[in-house]
Amino acid sequence: MSSAACIFCKIIKGDIPSLKLFESDKVFAFLDIQPLSRGHALVIPKFHGAKLTDIPDEDLVEILPVAKKIAQATGAVDFNILQNNGRIAHQVVDHVHFHMIPKPNEKEGMTIGWPNQEGDMDKLKALHEEIKAKM
Amino acid sequence: MSSAACIFCKIIKGDIPSLKLFESDKVFAFLDIQPLSRGHALVIPKFHGAKLTDIPDEDLVEILPVAKKIAQATGAVDFNILQNNGRIAHQVVDHVHFHMIPKPNEKEGMTIGWPNQEGDMDKLKALHEEIKAKM
Repeated sequence: MSSAACIFCKIIKGDIPSLKLFESDKVFAFLDIQPLSRGHALVIPKFHGAKLTDIPDEDLVEILPVAKKIAQATGAVDFNILQNNGRIAHQVVDHVHFHMIPKPNEKEGMTIGWPNQEGDMDKLKALHEEIKAKM
Repeated sequence: MSSAACIFCKIIKGDIPSLKLFESDKVFAFLDIQPLSRGHALVIPKFHGAKLTDIPDEDLVEILPVAKKIAQATGAVDFNILQNNGRIAHQVVDHVHFHMIPKPNEKEGMTIGWPNQEGDMDKLKALHEEIKAKM
């Protein structure tokens, strides 16, 4: 399944060139050409879907082993794995992609804002039951 | 393989209680008790290792299918998947963990800073060859 209008589907097909790092039946990986740091790469399922929840499990299993392999090959010591779902969550291209972003210093790589809440244990327990019932 | 001093290994063993959402031979998932948003959960390999590069492939394959399943169960429409490696990359607990963080609005959930560089194509091509040679 691919989408004719999708830039990542075109990269997978070779219609748009890329700095390919890995390819298998289900996964494709390449360097980001607007990197946040040296070695910033993208690992994507070949299956076209905008969000993680659109991708079959079998198309997801190889993603993290490939991201790991690339992180090792870049020599990155510290790095982030990030996958965004939705515009508000910073997603720009509507084909699932996992960033592997080396974090060599404070200036390069992604930065993270973490406005965490003090957990209300009673609310969390109620939520826990609610989510478990849907799994 | 587990580490006696690791808080996540203690949670896996049940020595520290958690709001467990999923458990299999290789993966454990639970609600974050200091959530960034409603439904913020952690998915971790049972194998103890600080960084993604420390975890065997076979212990990684189930992580994303489980994160997907939890995202679906929370009803999150927009969300981020994040895994940090190293203090500078925002890692606090030294046992690999994947955050599933719903992003319901601008205030809740994580925020992302994206200081991307204009890619120098010649440098990127040289880097591409260098990384490929190490894969």
